[in-house]
Amino acid sequence: MRFLSSLYSLSVFSSKPHPFNSIFTPLLNHLHISFIHCETHSTQQTLLFMDASEETLRKTLTEKQNSVTTQANVVRNLKGAKAAKSEIDAAVEALNALKLEKTSIEQQLQAVLNSDGSGNSLNREAFRHAVVNTLERRFFYKPSFSIYGGVAGLYDYGPPGSAVKSNVLAFWRQHFVLKENMLEVDCPCVTPEVVLKASGHVDKFTDLMVKDEKTGMCYRADHLLKDFCKEKLEKDFSLPVEKIADFKHVLAVLDDLSTEQLGAKIKEYGITAPDTKNPLSDPYPFNLMFQTSIGPSGESTGYMRPETAQGIFVNFNYLYYYNGNKLPFAAAQIGQAFRNEISPRQGLLRVREFTLAEIEHFVDPSDKSHRKYGEVVDLEFLMFPREEQMAGNQAKRTRLGDAVSKGIVNNETLAYFIGRVYLFLTRLGIDKERLRFRQHLANEMAHYAADCWDAEIECSYGWVECVGIADRSAYDLNAHSAKSGVALDAHEKLQEPREIEKLVIAPMKKELGLEFKGNQKKAMNEKEAMEMKATLESKGEVEFHVCTLGKAVTIKSSMVSISIEKKKEHQRVFTPSVIEPSFGIGRIIYCLFEHSFYTRPSKAGDEQLNVFRFPSLVAPVKCTVFPLVQNQEYENVAEQISQSLTGSGILHKIDITGTSIGKRYARTDELGVPLAITVDSSSSVTIRERDSKEQIRVGIDEVAAVVKAVTEGQSTWTDIQQRYPAHSSTAVDE
Amino acid sequence: MRFLSSLYSLSVFSSKPHPFNSIFTPLLNHLHISFIHCETHSTQQTLLFMDASEETLRKTLTEKQNSVTTQANVVRNLKGAKAAKSEIDAAVEALNALKLEKTSIEQQLQAVLNSDGSGNSLNREAFRHAVVNTLERRFFYKPSFSIYGGVAGLYDYGPPGSAVKSNVLAFWRQHFVLKENMLEVDCPCVTPEVVLKASGHVDKFTDLMVKDEKTGMCYRADHLLKDFCKEKLEKDFSLPVEKIADFKHVLAVLDDLSTEQLGAKIKEYGITAPDTKNPLSDPYPFNLMFQTSIGPSGESTGYMRPETAQGIFVNFNYLYYYNGNKLPFAAAQIGQAFRNEISPRQGLLRVREFTLAEIEHFVDPSDKSHRKYGEVVDLEFLMFPREEQMAGNQAKRTRLGDAVSKGIVNNETLAYFIGRVYLFLTRLGIDKERLRFRQHLANEMAHYAADCWDAEIECSYGWVECVGIADRSAYDLNAHSAKSGVALDAHEKLQEPREIEKLVIAPMKKELGLEFKGNQKKAMNEKEAMEMKATLESKGEVEFHVCTLGKAVTIKSSMVSISIEKKKEHQRVFTPSVIEPSFGIGRIIYCLFEHSFYTRPSKAGDEQLNVFRFPSLVAPVKCTVFPLVQNQEYENVAEQISQSLTGSGILHKIDITGTSIGKRYARTDELGVPLAITVDSSSSVTIRERDSKEQIRVGIDEVAAVVKAVTEGQSTWTDIQQRYPAHSSTAVDE
Repeated sequence: MRFLSSLYSLSVFSSKPHPFNSIFTPLLNHLHISFIHCETHSTQQTLLFMDASEETLRKTLTEKQNSVTTQANVVRNLKGAKAAKSEIDAAVEALNALKLEKTSIEQQLQAVLNSDGSGNSLNREAFRHAVVNTLERRFFYKPSFSIYGGVAGLYDYGPPGSAVKSNVLAFWRQHFVLKENMLEVDCPCVTPEVVLKASGHVDKFTDLMVKDEKTGMCYRADHLLKDFCKEKLEKDFSLPVEKIADFKHVLAVLDDLSTEQLGAKIKEYGITAPDTKNPLSDPYPFNLMFQTSIGPSGESTGYMRPETAQGIFVNFNYLYYYNGNKLPFAAAQIGQAFRNEISPRQGLLRVREFTLAEIEHFVDPSDKSHRKYGEVVDLEFLMFPREEQMAGNQAKRTRLGDAVSKGIVNNETLAYFIGRVYLFLTRLGIDKERLRFRQHLANEMAHYAADCWDAEIECSYGWVECVGIADRSAYDLNAHSAKSGVALDAHEKLQEPREIEKLVIAPMKKELGLEFKGNQKKAMNEKEAMEMKATLESKGEVEFHVCTLGKAVTIKSSMVSISIEKKKEHQRVFTPSVIEPSFGIGRIIYCLFEHSFYTRPSKAGDEQLNVFRFPSLVAPVKCTVFPLVQNQEYENVAEQISQSLTGSGILHKIDITGTSIGKRYARTDELGVPLAITVDSSSSVTIRERDSKEQIRVGIDEVAAVVKAVTEGQSTWTDIQQRYPAHSSTAVDE
Repeated sequence: MRFLSSLYSLSVFSSKPHPFNSIFTPLLNHLHISFIHCETHSTQQTLLFMDASEETLRKTLTEKQNSVTTQANVVRNLKGAKAAKSEIDAAVEALNALKLEKTSIEQQLQAVLNSDGSGNSLNREAFRHAVVNTLERRFFYKPSFSIYGGVAGLYDYGPPGSAVKSNVLAFWRQHFVLKENMLEVDCPCVTPEVVLKASGHVDKFTDLMVKDEKTGMCYRADHLLKDFCKEKLEKDFSLPVEKIADFKHVLAVLDDLSTEQLGAKIKEYGITAPDTKNPLSDPYPFNLMFQTSIGPSGESTGYMRPETAQGIFVNFNYLYYYNGNKLPFAAAQIGQAFRNEISPRQGLLRVREFTLAEIEHFVDPSDKSHRKYGEVVDLEFLMFPREEQMAGNQAKRTRLGDAVSKGIVNNETLAYFIGRVYLFLTRLGIDKERLRFRQHLANEMAHYAADCWDAEIECSYGWVECVGIADRSAYDLNAHSAKSGVALDAHEKLQEPREIEKLVIAPMKKELGLEFKGNQKKAMNEKEAMEMKATLESKGEVEFHVCTLGKAVTIKSSMVSISIEKKKEHQRVFTPSVIEPSFGIGRIIYCLFEHSFYTRPSKAGDEQLNVFRFPSLVAPVKCTVFPLVQNQEYENVAEQISQSLTGSGILHKIDITGTSIGKRYARTDELGVPLAITVDSSSSVTIRERDSKEQIRVGIDEVAAVVKAVTEGQSTWTDIQQRYPAHSSTAVDE
């Protein structure tokens, strides 16, 4: 039943070129964080058709409904005819049996509609509820400003969530910035309009919105249409076949509808404001950037950046110089980005403020090899090239090197980053079976892009785009160069100077000079210049429109000399391509929470206990320390251990509450703490590992070293178990 | 010449209560980052008087000017009388001599005016110019969006600046969060209006502004007045004594002037718009928060937070619960904050977006002892209590424990944080002789504050407040509790239950019940209730204004029962006090840059080379690697060393350019890199220490371990020098 997957789609932004196409597309592609494809485009094809079991069930249901109606008439007629009671009773019994059968079929159909092929959506929601409940209760995160009723789409990370986030970012820095010697920068969030005008965000970073015509309440147009179709399909079992096909078609092409088409569908279906049932306005674009004003005059518009990348592009020249005028090099930035969502949903996945980590790897477009490509060439993981998507297939385990050699991945540098992203995510604890790299379809990609892949992670919301890895060619540098008038180029000294032909326009008059001088390319291209030359030679004069004068002037052959001259060029000047891996940190963290979460029965078997199986690398607290019973001696030992842990730089938590040791283990498991230290004597302690629940005895002086070795990865728990005696768990285990 | 110090003051915000006093003051005190006191308030007293040498010089100058005028008349008369040439020549010669003398006195006066007692301001500016030039050229930071002309008050940290910032923040986390087991949180920058209404920012976070009445250009009112007075005093040597006193008085009390007084002075002096000379509007308050709109309706106002602290206060209940409902505990947050400055000046010190690191330490107001107080009690550093400031003295080296025992510092917890801040700043590399802790004067502090100290660092701009450490009592929690209606309290189980008297108002009628029920305290306080009771008992009825009805009703004794009952209370409920150390990270980093910078002559003696003597802890790059000459063998060795450094987690930089080794050392010194590795053989290399320029020989396999030991502080350079042979510097040194 894959066709229902789009009901859980997180798509918010059209992923295909809109009617106002070419300007929109580049932008879309840049705004990688906007894309979430929970399912692939290949599902659009199947979406138009019903799954066999659904079709059969709907058909059976219609037949059964007819039988019920017929039998109800039989009963009514018998009663009208005052038939014998036994006869009536038998007919009623038959009617009830038919109704029961109908209900049973409805339930089966409901189940089919709720499942999406990879699991039952009700289970998914129950699972999500359990995870989110634990996360909020233990203050991994919570809705912000809750004492004031909160603000949709804003979240606070509490102590454990904030620690997980710090750990993820620290590992990102180590894995990318340090390992690759990237140039990290840190630019402001407040951004003047001109920068985001050049990038396209001011004009095109929009979602379509409708307003309640009476109250002014705003809604995402595509959300309303989607919810309407979804509800009809899920709840109305008497829908005629052609209606079912229509709703499914709308869901399939939702992202591709124009403003007008979306408005027409809303009108056609008679969709009204959900809260008031009032009529709705036509859809219109709403810019998703938070707007503000820089300085006191109110005349200088600014925005909170919707991504961090622009801060790198506008600094290209300085970074290139910092790197000794050498390519390739990568710049990186971690920072806040902002999107004023119309109606945020789905917790941490769609928020109004979030942390991005972005890399811009600048490379010579004529050589996209990567010197460390060999380190990733043999990695194997789920890849989902566009051809497979178009053919309606699934993602397949693929050797990265093969994808490159077959031309599926465009170039080595792009492949290198795909491999590095794979290593990054799986080392954090993302399940490699629920991680795939999906290539953008041709119509998702901007015209200038060489190739784009998304790292998608499967969670209870479906497949979520968490990292976008795009070869954006020279688009961004060109856009800023054009808008600012500042060249953003690289140059390469040629081994041998080469001869080139160069257009030379030498004006003979001052007023022409002003137009032509130093700006020959802008004034005329080569073709135009040669045409002018021909006209001047044949007719002796030509009409020419001078932009700066705003009028046409008559140019005579005596006024200008046009020629093509041969010149020697000693260096090659070019605009670098950029390959951009862009990480939505909050999304990665949320998926990590889901992938790390499991439950297990308590010892008494009377409740399910929650555990986060975080690797030590990301665990918010590396170990907890608790005295077995409340007494001064044990508390002193706990304090002594705490000091040695602090000395070793290990973030830990002391729990001196008097609750049972089992409860305290349960608490610490719920925070994903890898090791728990129970102080049960004044010379040695018990160390318990979270997932195996196995315990060892370790002398007090050695505790910090053992914890450090395990949590920093120098030793495994198994290594340690061989060096220290096991501890019987009966006394203290849960 | 301390009286001129305020010319270099960074004060922007009134440091004394304004006429609309009590509401403003609390806010002021909260907005710690707003305060910069480059000199102390005691200078206000001396400011009114002239320094002796200035007075003498101004007097001599006036006399000399008179002599010049007289002599000029003599010359004119002689010429008019057609006197002998020799006589005229002699008079002209005398006139010229007088003019020379006058110029000399003017120069002396200028020098006196430009100095500020602690050094010559011209030298300060030259020094600053050298530092900032190096910082911008090496891309520690640069003005943001410079290809578009830039935006005042916004800066980009480039690779070395960004690394220094990361290092400072990592050390902050280690020194405070880890060491003290603080609860770190991470809240959004986008903040709804209600939160900042409660904190006072919406109403009072303002600067006074004037507008050019013709062009609409905006200026900070106090800046214009300050610049005018400063220019008059510095440039106009013919000012009468009373005018001089007037301008100096204005400078001294600038921060205390009301809107009306500021406007009156601008009018009195005839100050016009600096760019156009147009007339100016009256001053009016401009709110310094960046305003935006949350969500699509445009009806929900939001602001970019001006500080991170509010995110902690609104989460108090969750944090308290997370901490097992125990006090004391501290929460911490690192994040961006925003101020829409009217006209930013002074580089990184006054910017429109900046990183704050804030701690809110919640403590029982009845017990402000600190269990780790003993760790800081013997620290000695420059302290500047308010009494010393009032007496016109200087900051004095003081033992922290003495300041507490003498009652100068209010409590142990406050002192503990002062001590920890001192350790933090000096370990970063801040010169302890140019760091002082200045206590707020009584009129700088909010009425509720117990005590406030600023860590001030001296740099070329004067004394700059970089950390504010305030005991803010229960103000913030109370403000949010009152606004949100949610109790933000702590509770302590009493050993023995205690008996208390409680007002009980039991309404007998429903309409009264609505007013009284569950809201007795708001309806009436105890005194009012007992008065009502007395009136009811004597007269049988009473008039009572019911707010919800908006009118007075007659209450009869039968309608209500009022009594004081004795109840047993088992726990004490109270609002915790908060002690808040708040760090302006950009300011600390800028001061660190200045304190770390020095120059030394090149070997040839023909130029001055720049060095940043960063401790390894903050150095942006820990070591550089360069092959002595360009060949494949050395480059391979460099690559091999680079890999082992990466493996050890050491951020480094390879320089394979062919420039001279001296030039490459100079480059690396300018980035503050502690160690440079020169590859000059294929078995061992030369390691050079930045400040001593001493060199040792180390085998290739040991390089990473040596660099790690020195840069992570396990060994000193001196230790290492004893273990490895020294290297003669003649071959490769600059």
